[in-house]
Amino acid sequence: MTDHPRVLEAEHRPNPEHISPEQQAVEEQLISNVLRSFDNCTDPRLKQLMHSLVRHLHAFIRDVRLTEAEWNKAIEFLTAVGHITDERRQEFILLSDVLGASMQTINVNNEAYEDATEATVFGPFFVENSPRIDNGDDISGGAAGQPCWVEGSVTDTDGNPIPNARIEVWEADEDGFYDVQYTDDRVSARAHLFSDDDGNYRFWGLTPTPYPIPHDGPVGKMLEATGRSPMRASHLHFMVTAPGKRTLVTHIFVRGDELLKYDTVFGVKQSLVKDFDEQPAGTATPDGRDLGDRSWSQVRFDIVLAPSTS
Amino acid sequence: MTDHPRVLEAEHRPNPEHISPEQQAVEEQLISNVLRSFDNCTDPRLKQLMHSLVRHLHAFIRDVRLTEAEWNKAIEFLTAVGHITDERRQEFILLSDVLGASMQTINVNNEAYEDATEATVFGPFFVENSPRIDNGDDISGGAAGQPCWVEGSVTDTDGNPIPNARIEVWEADEDGFYDVQYTDDRVSARAHLFSDDDGNYRFWGLTPTPYPIPHDGPVGKMLEATGRSPMRASHLHFMVTAPGKRTLVTHIFVRGDELLKYDTVFGVKQSLVKDFDEQPAGTATPDGRDLGDRSWSQVRFDIVLAPSTS
Ligand SMILES: [Fe+2]
Ligand SMILES: [Fe+2]
Repeated sequence: MTDHPRVLEAEHRPNPEHISPEQQAVEEQLISNVLRSFDNCTDPRLKQLMHSLVRHLHAFIRDVRLTEAEWNKAIEFLTAVGHITDERRQEFILLSDVLGASMQTINVNNEAYEDATEATVFGPFFVENSPRIDNGDDISGGAAGQPCWVEGSVTDTDGNPIPNARIEVWEADEDGFYDVQYTDDRVSARAHLFSDDDGNYRFWGLTPTPYPIPHDGPVGKMLEATGRSPMRASHLHFMVTAPGKRTLVTHIFVRGDELLKYDTVFGVKQSLVKDFDEQPAGTATPDGRDLGDRSWSQVRFDIVLAPSTS
Repeated sequence: MTDHPRVLEAEHRPNPEHISPEQQAVEEQLISNVLRSFDNCTDPRLKQLMHSLVRHLHAFIRDVRLTEAEWNKAIEFLTAVGHITDERRQEFILLSDVLGASMQTINVNNEAYEDATEATVFGPFFVENSPRIDNGDDISGGAAGQPCWVEGSVTDTDGNPIPNARIEVWEADEDGFYDVQYTDDRVSARAHLFSDDDGNYRFWGLTPTPYPIPHDGPVGKMLEATGRSPMRASHLHFMVTAPGKRTLVTHIFVRGDELLKYDTVFGVKQSLVKDFDEQPAGTATPDGRDLGDRSWSQVRFDIVLAPSTS
């Protein structure tokens, strides 16, 4: 039972266009039997989900004429994804991300609403209970990187300012790692703050840099086998919540980043690409902070929240 | 990072028929981006598999308008399936089985060939290196159950006998457990033998009894939540191999078993339902074995192997 034996090698794989009517009937009868097995499901939504899952799963198997060797590989792959997943690493989320399933779920649940800011993927690196900072403070907490002044407004879709919106921000350091990817329990490059009475916010962060998703596991192997890059376009994460408003989970991206055209989790939306203006060392900073001989950047991100519909 | 936070509750789920053309364009653009990400895949079959997987996965998410809460549940479910899977338990195979995916893969790869015996699911309880027995011997190895005389022929589709075909047989005991489900390393109710010079075979096994698939894990919870039974129809497993012939993995089922109409892994095919003739205690046995005061049964299973096409 240790290894599922490889006795079941496919011995023929007919072209789907040439499947006999008898064979098609066998395959369709099975689908109908599986669908009927959910007849006693008392939760109509769960039943709908299972029915649709079964239809699409079987359509996949039939369309590609999945071989038994490939089925074995799929079982082995999923087992490896399960075994590398632990409290610090969620390989199933990575898998969902690189197949675009996370982004499609975001799309389905965050339909465009007037000029509300668009949503993108959540990613696996958010942490609850981030440090609270005041407007104008620095989120970096010692993380390495070029300082970046971030400011903007939070408004509703009629342009009214939203004071006291909770703004969570988090990002990788210049080496491409989030604090939680280090083993020393550091908390850095993440914080939350609140928009001021005029609905504005501002903080010091780091100019975003590109990074690979964790690619030393089965998802990384899959990307390599299929000729894909593990890189994500440079970005800074935001999650913004306010009473009566749809929660916004999004990023801002860096205009000019060559990875914008290929982000391995498909998170880029044009409306989220922002100008990060490079400032040479010595340029006066917005809040008078003295950065010595360091260059810095600044970006404006005005956030528009859609009404909550729940 | 420990728990993927539940911040992303779906706030609206429009009826798929009322998705705006703009929203549909956003969703379709994403699919096209994901498909394009495989442009550099040099293995054409792998590329085909990934393309089809992406199309069907996204079609599922769009059809059901999957909520972010449901996506979270799915990630949690797959994580639990991964974590219970170990060397003695393969929950991903169980999951594939109860969704009919295993059986559909069998169907696709074992298309009906003239009157060749039909295939069914492999199941998770096969073990390599089973004991070798001679024709007429007993496979039970001490497993509890009613003795059952099993005999038949192995032929090709022209009716020619196939001597020396390797016949692997395995089954549950009368309590519904396979030997590998006990923790004492017993080997029982499994063996292999070879067809004789005339292509015939015979052995003593146990009359099959119904049993539940392991249902104390996430797959069992899913069956319960969806109102499904974990029971399998009574069956005896066979795997038959011979040079130049398509490997046959199948079961025989017991005519009259009320579970024939609902087998939780969808393995039943009418051609595999056999008459197990009950014999009262004292009835003379085919080989003169003295069973004392025990009743027994007998069944005939003539095996027809399709030619190998590889
Ligand atoms: Fe990120
Ligand atoms: Fe079985």
